[in-house]
Amino acid sequence: MFLKAVRAARRAEGTPRPDDFSIITAPLPDPGPGEVVVANEYLSVDPYMREFMALGGWELGYGLEGRAIGRVIASTVADLPEGAFVAHRHGWSTHARLTPAELRVITEYEGVPASAHLGLLGGTGLTAWVGLTRVARVRPGDDVFVSTAAGAVGGAAGQFARLLGARRVVGSTGSPAKVGHVVGTLGFAAAFDYHDGLAEGLARVAPDGVDVYFDNVGGAHLEAAIDVLREFGRVAWCGAIAQYATLADPPPAPRNLYDVVGKSLRLEGFLVRRNLDARPELEDFAVPRIRSGDLVVDETVVDGFDRLPEAFLGLLRGENTGKMLVRL
Amino acid sequence: MFLKAVRAARRAEGTPRPDDFSIITAPLPDPGPGEVVVANEYLSVDPYMREFMALGGWELGYGLEGRAIGRVIASTVADLPEGAFVAHRHGWSTHARLTPAELRVITEYEGVPASAHLGLLGGTGLTAWVGLTRVARVRPGDDVFVSTAAGAVGGAAGQFARLLGARRVVGSTGSPAKVGHVVGTLGFAAAFDYHDGLAEGLARVAPDGVDVYFDNVGGAHLEAAIDVLREFGRVAWCGAIAQYATLADPPPAPRNLYDVVGKSLRLEGFLVRRNLDARPELEDFAVPRIRSGDLVVDETVVDGFDRLPEAFLGLLRGENTGKMLVRL
Repeated sequence: MFLKAVRAARRAEGTPRPDDFSIITAPLPDPGPGEVVVANEYLSVDPYMREFMALGGWELGYGLEGRAIGRVIASTVADLPEGAFVAHRHGWSTHARLTPAELRVITEYEGVPASAHLGLLGGTGLTAWVGLTRVARVRPGDDVFVSTAAGAVGGAAGQFARLLGARRVVGSTGSPAKVGHVVGTLGFAAAFDYHDGLAEGLARVAPDGVDVYFDNVGGAHLEAAIDVLREFGRVAWCGAIAQYATLADPPPAPRNLYDVVGKSLRLEGFLVRRNLDARPELEDFAVPRIRSGDLVVDETVVDGFDRLPEAFLGLLRGENTGKMLVRL
Repeated sequence: MFLKAVRAARRAEGTPRPDDFSIITAPLPDPGPGEVVVANEYLSVDPYMREFMALGGWELGYGLEGRAIGRVIASTVADLPEGAFVAHRHGWSTHARLTPAELRVITEYEGVPASAHLGLLGGTGLTAWVGLTRVARVRPGDDVFVSTAAGAVGGAAGQFARLLGARRVVGSTGSPAKVGHVVGTLGFAAAFDYHDGLAEGLARVAPDGVDVYFDNVGGAHLEAAIDVLREFGRVAWCGAIAQYATLADPPPAPRNLYDVVGKSLRLEGFLVRRNLDARPELEDFAVPRIRSGDLVVDETVVDGFDRLPEAFLGLLRGENTGKMLVRL
């Protein structure tokens, strides 16, 4: 038995490209004492991996960390038998050898696709949930603006906000097709393509302003959002995609930041890894709504381990809607 | 009987100077039906008046608004008899003719100087109180950094934070004498003169970081504070003195704003006028502590109405500690 894994083929420099990656084959290890071996079923590719590469986490001969789900196929741990369904962060490989501390056993819910444990029920969904419920503290009747609305986190945030009672959820995204997708499939009230003008688009979809901005982007999007936030508006700031490509030289902060005072705004950053205790709440909320169809499991699935680099590069080019996954 | 009032002598342009102001004399009016006439006892000069002038609130022949306290000397209003002690915002004059909606009757507390109703118990103290209790939500054990610590709002914030149970309160100010004042008189644990270097000074007085920043300034101070805020730190942002002189061209936003995400910070702006309902809480907290001497009523008092412009210009040059007042 063999495993395959993606490794760095050259030092990371600028925008990732196919020849940054190579696929190696190695004998499948047996689990040592207190270890299990997992056969991965789905791998997640995420924007933060770009940052991880640039930060030096991508060294010649080594791989990336990445979220994955799969089944235990060999075990020396009594309460982790063969067949146990688990999530872990040693992805970018067909198999992983893990200790119990490195994994989380997943509850398999009837009527919920396994892949949802990487999307709506995984770190992606948890990011959206924490940002809305703990940071922005969305209330029924709020008007909400979500950036990268067709992406995994943005799409989850928009759907959750609507189901939490938001009055009107609007989004920005990167193409006319994605505008159609977030309105037609994800239930956003309106959306716009930011390439056509951020301030103009936002003014068109939210002419009366918004109460909450779920920020996935930073930079110019944050500046435009501050302009349309109403008094006492809240920003849940969960990432900074705009920053990934230019870490040494972050994008300028919003020129209108002083409106935080004048409009009594709250700008709050958060990291999902500091809020893992919210997972049971998220499952209570999302599982019945996935079953009923009120929550759409929005995924772009690429089949075959060898296409993992291709899936990641496609994600960075915005070729997905929803969660970008590789199915093994 | 005559009144005196300060009026604009020329159009506001750049830094205010003595010949921007002229003092006029006019007959003291009688109160009309439903009006009172108040003889002012103390007038407040405040940094925001600079902004008000620049924004066009200072037109040739007109005066500025300003907080004042005084006594009713003539009245046609049944429940506002002569001798009633009131606060209002028609300052920059020895007298004011007001309707009941334009004033607030003040409770005179034994053992509390009247002037405190413009300082610790006025808008100044309320700004500090709201910023600490409603915005930053200071908790016992927090380490707190306050900018403009020798100023009226900063000095109140530092004293309140200590009495609310903060572990260590540190401040920035503008001269070695003020450093001595805030530590020796106001009870700050440490302070520094920001002219000697903001980042260096802050690192010296708060080597282990802080949990809360009470921001009176914005600009470079906010950037330095973000650098020393601990994870889950909170910024209560109540004004932007750095902005007053350059409204058309606000100071650059902090270059490290993205740390709001990485450190899970909360940056929240507020306006005291949206929080006037907090006044009873403030009085409950501050009145007994003023009486006991735990709270120092820190004031720089200039005597004589004609010296009002001089007091205001002195305030803008930072010549005061604590609340800058004119006593009539």
